[in-house]
Amino acid sequence: MSPELPFMLHATDGRARRGTVTTAHGTVETPAFMPVGTAATVKAMKGADVKATGAEIILGNTYHLMLRPGADRIERLGGLHRFMGWDGPILTDSGGFQVMSLAGIRKMTEKGVTFQSHIDGSKHLLTPERSIEIQHQLDANITMAFDECTPFPAMHDVAKTSMELSMRWAERSKSAYRKRAGYGLFGIVQGSVYDDLRKVSSDILTGIGFDGYAVGGLAVGEPQAEMFRVLDASTPHLPEDKPRYLMGVGRPSDLIGAVARGVDMFDCVMPTRAGRTAKAFTARGEVNLRNARHAEDPRPLEAGCDCPGCTMHSRAYLHHLFKAEEMLGPMLLTWHNLRHYQRLMAAMRDAIEQGGFAAFAAERLAHLDEGDIPPL
Amino acid sequence: MSPELPFMLHATDGRARRGTVTTAHGTVETPAFMPVGTAATVKAMKGADVKATGAEIILGNTYHLMLRPGADRIERLGGLHRFMGWDGPILTDSGGFQVMSLAGIRKMTEKGVTFQSHIDGSKHLLTPERSIEIQHQLDANITMAFDECTPFPAMHDVAKTSMELSMRWAERSKSAYRKRAGYGLFGIVQGSVYDDLRKVSSDILTGIGFDGYAVGGLAVGEPQAEMFRVLDASTPHLPEDKPRYLMGVGRPSDLIGAVARGVDMFDCVMPTRAGRTAKAFTARGEVNLRNARHAEDPRPLEAGCDCPGCTMHSRAYLHHLFKAEEMLGPMLLTWHNLRHYQRLMAAMRDAIEQGGFAAFAAERLAHLDEGDIPPL
Repeated sequence: MSPELPFMLHATDGRARRGTVTTAHGTVETPAFMPVGTAATVKAMKGADVKATGAEIILGNTYHLMLRPGADRIERLGGLHRFMGWDGPILTDSGGFQVMSLAGIRKMTEKGVTFQSHIDGSKHLLTPERSIEIQHQLDANITMAFDECTPFPAMHDVAKTSMELSMRWAERSKSAYRKRAGYGLFGIVQGSVYDDLRKVSSDILTGIGFDGYAVGGLAVGEPQAEMFRVLDASTPHLPEDKPRYLMGVGRPSDLIGAVARGVDMFDCVMPTRAGRTAKAFTARGEVNLRNARHAEDPRPLEAGCDCPGCTMHSRAYLHHLFKAEEMLGPMLLTWHNLRHYQRLMAAMRDAIEQGGFAAFAAERLAHLDEGDIPPL
Repeated sequence: MSPELPFMLHATDGRARRGTVTTAHGTVETPAFMPVGTAATVKAMKGADVKATGAEIILGNTYHLMLRPGADRIERLGGLHRFMGWDGPILTDSGGFQVMSLAGIRKMTEKGVTFQSHIDGSKHLLTPERSIEIQHQLDANITMAFDECTPFPAMHDVAKTSMELSMRWAERSKSAYRKRAGYGLFGIVQGSVYDDLRKVSSDILTGIGFDGYAVGGLAVGEPQAEMFRVLDASTPHLPEDKPRYLMGVGRPSDLIGAVARGVDMFDCVMPTRAGRTAKAFTARGEVNLRNARHAEDPRPLEAGCDCPGCTMHSRAYLHHLFKAEEMLGPMLLTWHNLRHYQRLMAAMRDAIEQGGFAAFAAERLAHLDEGDIPPL
């Protein structure tokens, strides 16, 4: 167990784990889902609203924040927690993933990545050292090592070269990181879909020693079965006593399958982004509120859900809001989706504690396949 | 006093009045400001948020609602209160003002107005009878008579002809209106800037008999002094024992001057629309959060304000949200502006009760002229 970022493992059920991560800004019950607050805001949600959904930790994006409003400014204003009015734990990514996505306007060397801002075209250099420094300035409770997210698909030799660079950068990230109580640094396993590379990467990272381990390079377009296969090849090589984080995942069925494979933490823009485009998650699958079938439906989006959209409004009203392009539509649906995700996480935590995770997972997945409730 | 829509006058101070309107969905302390919920939503606010600002009554727009989602649909879904999840009183306008604004795609006769929908080009006829029927379908607590909002400026003969048409329509509106306990119908005084026409209009409406009286045709581009002069020529002719409503007004200084002239109710898109474009109202005037002077300002937008934006965040953060075009910016600023307006109304109500309205008004107006707090 990391002395700076304690991880208590309370129960296991098969490979699924029930734990608690303790940070300087509060505890996180795992398995946990982290809403994404890219630009110092979980889109369309106040901080108190995010907390009300049951979220205990959120994610911030180093790339976006370093460009606007800038890490120096956030530091001068007291750090990201105070700046965005969120007093719970925050995890920041390293900026690597976003920077690598800037095709044509970035250049990568052993030192790091030179890139142009998508906002004003200004030139920037991001290195492992600079990424860690920025995450310190933001005061992130969990700092991510700077890595290259290997493109998918990639041939074995390309994936190997990329993973080895990420491992050298992981070492430099560790050197640049300043230990503090209640804070931690996570390494990121790479190696694309190749079991041997995933094992090598896991071993190198474990050798360096981190407070937690992320599985990177997934949720980049591969089928779910492939993602699960890679997880099967990755998590067994990671230390039992440290949290495991699957980056950028995913849909409810992805989360269920990954928890079954020993993952403790997730982040994804899925619930927030879907909410802004009228797509809702329910225990019976995904629902598009723009569909005319909802226009006169007086029923709540999801029966039993305690979010404002489900307790105060009908599907007909939500449909109307999206047709009229009213901001309240994205607001209510973002809230619902985040609440739905947190409810799923809580249900998985309960199931693991009670030793009934496999049964819970099977039943939930079966309902997801049923699809939405029939029209009235 | 109207038996269906009781108006209790608790205190007067000069011409300023402190009262209570009792509706089937709750009471409204006056002077009152009604946030505008055009399309069955006060933009960027949940119903509970609107209530949290202190608003007791909101306004809905007949024109928008009859076109989308349609009055029949709202009626089938239980009325506007249930549809939009607002259990307090609702006032609806008659649709006249919006329809008249559709230059080129509407035709007016004695019978009513034929117009094309701005949404899908479909043809519609709005008459006094149809407007009242729609407002019944919506279940509005306060229904507005269908009138023509006289264009500004208008020559005396044009204003007279227009006012006389509105008076005939007021009579037809009254005939079409169905009395119910806790519900009421308001007539609308017209007559442009002409004192003699305003007096004739007031006398005709009083003769017909309404549960309240609105002053229409103002806030259409005339200077504030002219609006106040017309109010001086209108409110003295209206019954003391019925509420008076100044439509579409206004800025804080407009509200203060109108309350001083005996107005009890207001509605305006100002606080919500301004909030979406980074403009905030404070006791020291208007503030544009996009201005670079706020970029590193750790102070709240308005000291002492209890809204989420002011209690949880700095000006620097609000500035960032608008620069990054994050939805939370409009959400927080709409909330602040509505809260600021409700605080102003509450302060005016207190001042009238204590017989200190003139002093309150003078001091508030002086502070408004000071402008925003100096930069740090």
